[in-house]
Amino acid sequence: MNPTAAVLIIGNEILSGRTQDANIQYLGKRLSQLGIKLTQARVIPDEVPTIVSVVQELSANHTYVFTTGGLGFTHDDRTAEAIAQAFHVELVEHPEALRLLQAYYNDRLNAARRRMALIPNGAQLIPNLISQSPGFQMENVFVLAGVPNIMQVMLDSVVNRLTQGAPIRYTTIQCHLTEGVIADALTAIQQQHPDVEIGSYPHFQAGVLNLGLVMRGTDEQTVAAATKDVADMIRSFGGEPTIENH
Amino acid sequence: MNPTAAVLIIGNEILSGRTQDANIQYLGKRLSQLGIKLTQARVIPDEVPTIVSVVQELSANHTYVFTTGGLGFTHDDRTAEAIAQAFHVELVEHPEALRLLQAYYNDRLNAARRRMALIPNGAQLIPNLISQSPGFQMENVFVLAGVPNIMQVMLDSVVNRLTQGAPIRYTTIQCHLTEGVIADALTAIQQQHPDVEIGSYPHFQAGVLNLGLVMRGTDEQTVAAATKDVADMIRSFGGEPTIENH
Repeated sequence: MNPTAAVLIIGNEILSGRTQDANIQYLGKRLSQLGIKLTQARVIPDEVPTIVSVVQELSANHTYVFTTGGLGFTHDDRTAEAIAQAFHVELVEHPEALRLLQAYYNDRLNAARRRMALIPNGAQLIPNLISQSPGFQMENVFVLAGVPNIMQVMLDSVVNRLTQGAPIRYTTIQCHLTEGVIADALTAIQQQHPDVEIGSYPHFQAGVLNLGLVMRGTDEQTVAAATKDVADMIRSFGGEPTIENH
Repeated sequence: MNPTAAVLIIGNEILSGRTQDANIQYLGKRLSQLGIKLTQARVIPDEVPTIVSVVQELSANHTYVFTTGGLGFTHDDRTAEAIAQAFHVELVEHPEALRLLQAYYNDRLNAARRRMALIPNGAQLIPNLISQSPGFQMENVFVLAGVPNIMQVMLDSVVNRLTQGAPIRYTTIQCHLTEGVIADALTAIQQQHPDVEIGSYPHFQAGVLNLGLVMRGTDEQTVAAATKDVADMIRSFGGEPTIENH
């Protein structure tokens, strides 16, 4: 069984529609490559009681939890405080975090910036090579920045802490048939390949409704066999499958 | 109190990172305009037991729930079946849905396409002006397509069924100061304007870390007053606020 993960996006700006989230997709792809199955994502506001209860629930039910957002300097950045509460520990000034901030800010290290060194007691720092304010790991919860490129470098620096599973392989077939034509034949192929997850995704491309079929699994050979069956099936309905290997 | 909403995105393709979700942002913005507060969003796989339990939880705790995805013709489209289970009713062939599909497909209406007329007993149809396969409303749960432009026309057609709240007004101020400089002054302004939600969003623009400050509330005058105070505060730190009214 591959390890599982949940992603928790913390931020009013995503729920209000002001900001388009990009972290779910990035984390979904990256975790897939690492063989870690992302089984849910949540977006919640910057409210401590909500963060506390959701973190406790997700932490109990997944191998790993990755949070993004709410790590800045301002009144609406409540993530560190909430994670401390979720794990029943105090927020304490982390000596190494303080040293990093001192080195980065020198005499511009005011009280607000110094608050970035407050980390839940017992947490392990996650380096931030871009702006120095660190993230942290508390048990199985990885607390990352919300700004996508900072989140991404933080994630890179914790990959070696993660137990990886078998990487998930996938292929995509594009065609111009509609789901209504191939649905029953596709169901039959899915039943013949229970270890491959076959997804069917209609989408508009240049005003035309196209169909993308995705075959996913941890075993390269069974994914290839399912891909061949789907391509043959498309041809049998007069379609022209375009196969993309990733 | 404004009505509340939860958004439920159903689809393995979002969790695997294959597809970038666009529906959370669209629904967040549109619901904001309608004075309906989006308090959480979730992304879950196309698995019936998961859909059932999450729909039951969200339906009990929000004025409205909007789901997207899993409404197509294929084996991985399980939403209608799951909503029926969540509300302890049967899936039944809806006569009006069947009539729409017959009119659209004529003699191409095969068994797979006809399954699109299966709707939880007691649900009300939601018209789909693009490809005819309807969505449906079951109590306070609005079940919409996953393809963004189909989701959007479905949403338009149910707006008149929603109780609207006071529309949420907001302004944005951009500046080049960093959070560490203004954090304490911003906290003071937030405390003076408890009815306005002030958010602080650092983001990279052309390689430079910019700061966007967002003032949100249902009363235009208090939002304007908070906006003026934030702009004055930025000037007091030597910054140049750029105010955007929406």
